[in-house]
Amino acid sequence: MTRERLMNVQEFERSLAESGLDAVVAVSQPNVFYTSGAYILTQVSVPDRLAMTVLPASGEDALLVCNIEEGLARDESWIEDVRSYVEFAEAPMHLLADVLKEKGLAQGRIGIEARRLGTGYYWELSEALPKASIEACDWLFDHVRSLKTEGEIQRLGEAGRATERAILEAFDQAKAGDTERHLLRTIKDNVALYGATDVVFAILGVGDQSYVPHPPARERPIELGELVRVDFGGSWECYGSDVARMAVVGEPTKAQADTYKKVREVERTAIEFMGPGVRACDVFRCVVETYAKFGIEYPGPHCGHGFGLETHEAPMLHPYNEAELQPNMLMCIEPVLFSEELGGYQVEDLVRITEEGSEILTSYGDADELFVIK
Amino acid sequence: MTRERLMNVQEFERSLAESGLDAVVAVSQPNVFYTSGAYILTQVSVPDRLAMTVLPASGEDALLVCNIEEGLARDESWIEDVRSYVEFAEAPMHLLADVLKEKGLAQGRIGIEARRLGTGYYWELSEALPKASIEACDWLFDHVRSLKTEGEIQRLGEAGRATERAILEAFDQAKAGDTERHLLRTIKDNVALYGATDVVFAILGVGDQSYVPHPPARERPIELGELVRVDFGGSWECYGSDVARMAVVGEPTKAQADTYKKVREVERTAIEFMGPGVRACDVFRCVVETYAKFGIEYPGPHCGHGFGLETHEAPMLHPYNEAELQPNMLMCIEPVLFSEELGGYQVEDLVRITEEGSEILTSYGDADELFVIK
Repeated sequence: MTRERLMNVQEFERSLAESGLDAVVAVSQPNVFYTSGAYILTQVSVPDRLAMTVLPASGEDALLVCNIEEGLARDESWIEDVRSYVEFAEAPMHLLADVLKEKGLAQGRIGIEARRLGTGYYWELSEALPKASIEACDWLFDHVRSLKTEGEIQRLGEAGRATERAILEAFDQAKAGDTERHLLRTIKDNVALYGATDVVFAILGVGDQSYVPHPPARERPIELGELVRVDFGGSWECYGSDVARMAVVGEPTKAQADTYKKVREVERTAIEFMGPGVRACDVFRCVVETYAKFGIEYPGPHCGHGFGLETHEAPMLHPYNEAELQPNMLMCIEPVLFSEELGGYQVEDLVRITEEGSEILTSYGDADELFVIK
Repeated sequence: MTRERLMNVQEFERSLAESGLDAVVAVSQPNVFYTSGAYILTQVSVPDRLAMTVLPASGEDALLVCNIEEGLARDESWIEDVRSYVEFAEAPMHLLADVLKEKGLAQGRIGIEARRLGTGYYWELSEALPKASIEACDWLFDHVRSLKTEGEIQRLGEAGRATERAILEAFDQAKAGDTERHLLRTIKDNVALYGATDVVFAILGVGDQSYVPHPPARERPIELGELVRVDFGGSWECYGSDVARMAVVGEPTKAQADTYKKVREVERTAIEFMGPGVRACDVFRCVVETYAKFGIEYPGPHCGHGFGLETHEAPMLHPYNEAELQPNMLMCIEPVLFSEELGGYQVEDLVRITEEGSEILTSYGDADELFVIK
């Protein structure tokens, strides 16, 4: 069944026309899905089984897949021109070159995802199309995908709230003495119960690991007094979630409660600061300055990121990014505090940039107080 | 804690010396893990946060990571020279160029993973090291990783058997009327119970989807008479599994039982055929010929693959691969039969090439008869 076309078609066409490129080629799983509707798992598990969309400035789009995936591609994609190559017998880049030639673009300006297309494949394509000008067009996909459609906002909001709920209910089900792995498994089970098809990342930092960015979950009990930091990314087929919530085992110490309130205050301040026309680097500065008021130095490297099909999407909220926020960008804001002295603190929410300012989409529970695991 | 070094050091050093390359650079998650012991999740979830190992023909190895991952890298890696870059402020490729210059290799022959290093990063590196000769060295990693060490064989055997067990127990727990998604969730839960840290792929093809290569699991009941095909890949942190098993809901028809026996017979024949010195393409031919005896045309494109850190590793068992099998290669053999008329049939096992021939490592259960779900 053809998937619903959620891409921002209008912005894509505008950007492609403005770029002067004759065609762009998507090669990464998120961009192939975004531009075709075909969600091809083996793009990740068998990365040399390339799938690509060819999107010319004028004329019909084409979807190029391994013949194994042809049935799925025809089922799921709204692109009618599906071509396939036989794995090991035919080179995907030769098929791509043939399609571009057929479209009269052998000497055209072709945009590739330069960060994602392997160098060896680029060499093959250059050899097959010696007169074409092959350029990076990652920026175009980054830009278009950053401006979410209503359908995307609905899906991502639901995914975020389901993830938040899964974490908070797991906190509710947990008790001192449960192992870290058990707690993580409960969160995963809950997320699956709420419809997630996959886990993208599942970070649980407890006690002496609360301030380790991506620690391994251990087969040890969570103990009274320990901080529990969860940063969880699920996926609902193609669209993802990225939510962080905190708990403490037993009643928090005054230092824990105070520090949590500060981190939450920094997050709220940044969310209220965000709105159309605000530069990404200024959101970062807002976080640095709010932390500074509490006498805490914020190290970065970022305090959040655009979110959608991938964990980190444009715009990144880092000190060097002067891009302005725009309505219908979806941002994850996460001014984490990792301190050997204080512990690791992280609250992360999904925020929509509106015409007037911003609104929080992950609002299933109340993250104002540090959750207490009994 | 530093991870156990399971890489085939001897073969790596021999191959690197023979290649004449001055250094090779690993950039993909499996190769960075393999050559350093650092298992960096964000290499996948945040793909522009590059991590790399620099492995010179003479002198010390270096591990290059984003500063966020520096603590983990120092903990897990046996490489002492860990360097870091600050995300967004410093370009990873400039750090790589600096390290190569420091090693006196500004004009050297540098091997890159050309299939995995994004073209844009290659452009940056070429610009930073204009006198270096940058070449593809994917073949070197493919070759070395194909010859498993004893430690790897033990881990992968355990992962395979745990996966097999998880599937068979889920079949045992299932009953007609359970939904496809429920069955898939049971398998995932079982695999997690047996220690898997992640699901790499989870394919469930039931009834009219049994012959669809990678179908989505549906919220519909599995019904009497339907074939159930499971192809499951878990991961135990870094090392994976890839096992396929079949069941039928209720007693099989004669056609189902017969077809299953044929597929299983083809698999057994191929396993018995495999051994040191046997060419990959001849294993493929063996499958084609055995199917032909049953009047079935085998379409390919392959009938199995090397297995380890990634789903498809060298050597691939396809008609154009003349590479010879060698002792301590681990092969997944999967002569799948997808037919609109007969249905989809797949049994996949993990096989070790020994000095004398081959041995099956996935032998928890008995796959001789089609499993019957009551």
